[in-house]
Amino acid sequence: MSAFAAASAVSRTAPDSAEFTAELDPQWTVGDKLHGGYLLAVMARAAGEIAHHPHLTAISGSFAVPPRPGPATVAVELLRAGTGVSQLRATLVQEGKPAAEALITQGTLDDADSWWSSVEPIDIPPEENCVPATADAPGAGFRVNLLDVVDQRVDPRHAGFAVGKPAGDGVISSWQRLADGSDWDPLSLLVALDPVPPVSYDLGMPGWAPTVQFTAYLRRLPAPGPVRVRMFATDVGGGRMDETARAWDSKGRPVAQATQLAAVRVPR
Amino acid sequence: MSAFAAASAVSRTAPDSAEFTAELDPQWTVGDKLHGGYLLAVMARAAGEIAHHPHLTAISGSFAVPPRPGPATVAVELLRAGTGVSQLRATLVQEGKPAAEALITQGTLDDADSWWSSVEPIDIPPEENCVPATADAPGAGFRVNLLDVVDQRVDPRHAGFAVGKPAGDGVISSWQRLADGSDWDPLSLLVALDPVPPVSYDLGMPGWAPTVQFTAYLRRLPAPGPVRVRMFATDVGGGRMDETARAWDSKGRPVAQATQLAAVRVPR
Repeated sequence: MSAFAAASAVSRTAPDSAEFTAELDPQWTVGDKLHGGYLLAVMARAAGEIAHHPHLTAISGSFAVPPRPGPATVAVELLRAGTGVSQLRATLVQEGKPAAEALITQGTLDDADSWWSSVEPIDIPPEENCVPATADAPGAGFRVNLLDVVDQRVDPRHAGFAVGKPAGDGVISSWQRLADGSDWDPLSLLVALDPVPPVSYDLGMPGWAPTVQFTAYLRRLPAPGPVRVRMFATDVGGGRMDETARAWDSKGRPVAQATQLAAVRVPR
Repeated sequence: MSAFAAASAVSRTAPDSAEFTAELDPQWTVGDKLHGGYLLAVMARAAGEIAHHPHLTAISGSFAVPPRPGPATVAVELLRAGTGVSQLRATLVQEGKPAAEALITQGTLDDADSWWSSVEPIDIPPEENCVPATADAPGAGFRVNLLDVVDQRVDPRHAGFAVGKPAGDGVISSWQRLADGSDWDPLSLLVALDPVPPVSYDLGMPGWAPTVQFTAYLRRLPAPGPVRVRMFATDVGGGRMDETARAWDSKGRPVAQATQLAAVRVPR
């Protein structure tokens, strides 16, 4: 089993139950906070056990209380099983309190090319010419354990934040691989769609940008190999930033996309 | 009271209840289906009665069963009331069955300019040079009652679908006003963010594109006057299309944005 599959595993609490137990893994953290994409993957894995369709297609999550590594439960409710898709709701509960809620659509993905596409894969230098993101970045003030299990190499054009020279474009692009060599799947792509650091770093705002609400669409089954991920913001104001992420597989096809609304502290 | 406020009104079923009644208004329909943005607005209005913060900030909705015009209930659960935001879940129930679920974040919006923005308002001809979208479009096969309460004027560069000559760009831009002259607010903007027709019309796919999952972010309080809305797709394949909508107010500031995953039938 891959490190990701093990970390996001769920077990039914009883044979016909729609409630699952999970063990939230401290490896998938940024500082002391579990990564949002990882938490959604745990919830989506539980929902997938109940769904009448095989693949995660859409997920929207709202994070109320940051859960801690350790035991948690996921309660799933099947809202509807239609012909083409199943719709579900999942609640992640820890210490008796709801920590996160998700709306989930399961469908059937394939690996066919697009019928029509308007977005080309990002133009990013080869992996070996990109800057490895490290778990112990100097001056970060906390350890990004996640970067021990996700190999992320950042386009040097938007890696200037690391030396106090952000480009100011509100863009960060990277290559991403799972560190244990396993391939991406629709669930692990949720981690790739919420890269570290947030694009606010490229705007000169080096601080935590907690996710308020996050939505991802999984578009097709990814080909083996690394994904290219581009994240960009369009508007920062009123203490909020939007971030859009798009991922292309090794064949250059769009495989997933996400948007999130995050809280930011604007410099004075 | 504006037509929109009346159509989306909710009443508590009892003084301290978190359950509300609503009367879904047949005016806010496309064919015989209630508009998704309108349904979310009804749910958000109910959530706003429970929230500790005044303005809708983010909403993600999953549509299971298309509700019919007539009585419905909205059950709201407050997941968390934090310092900056309230997080809630709402369920729209009709005839005893959940028809739609929404995750909602309420916060505090203002009308200040952006601190940083990368997206300019769309370049669209003046309203009087745009093409009015009519409720009784020839050949549509159904009546778009919504277009009697929302004045929508489409950029002629992407109105070719109406005469069988779609531009093929996957873009439709429009001016939008509420027909009764009232101004946009964070709830009514949910209607503006899901314009009719879907961008698939600009790709030569004139058919219903039912929403699978929809997410909107409200960014600031809109200035009085019309909004400019641009909707675009990035990928069509596997029976699915993504649509992104952005709205700018009469001062040219981004006020709201949305993404949706919709089902489409690709031409052979």
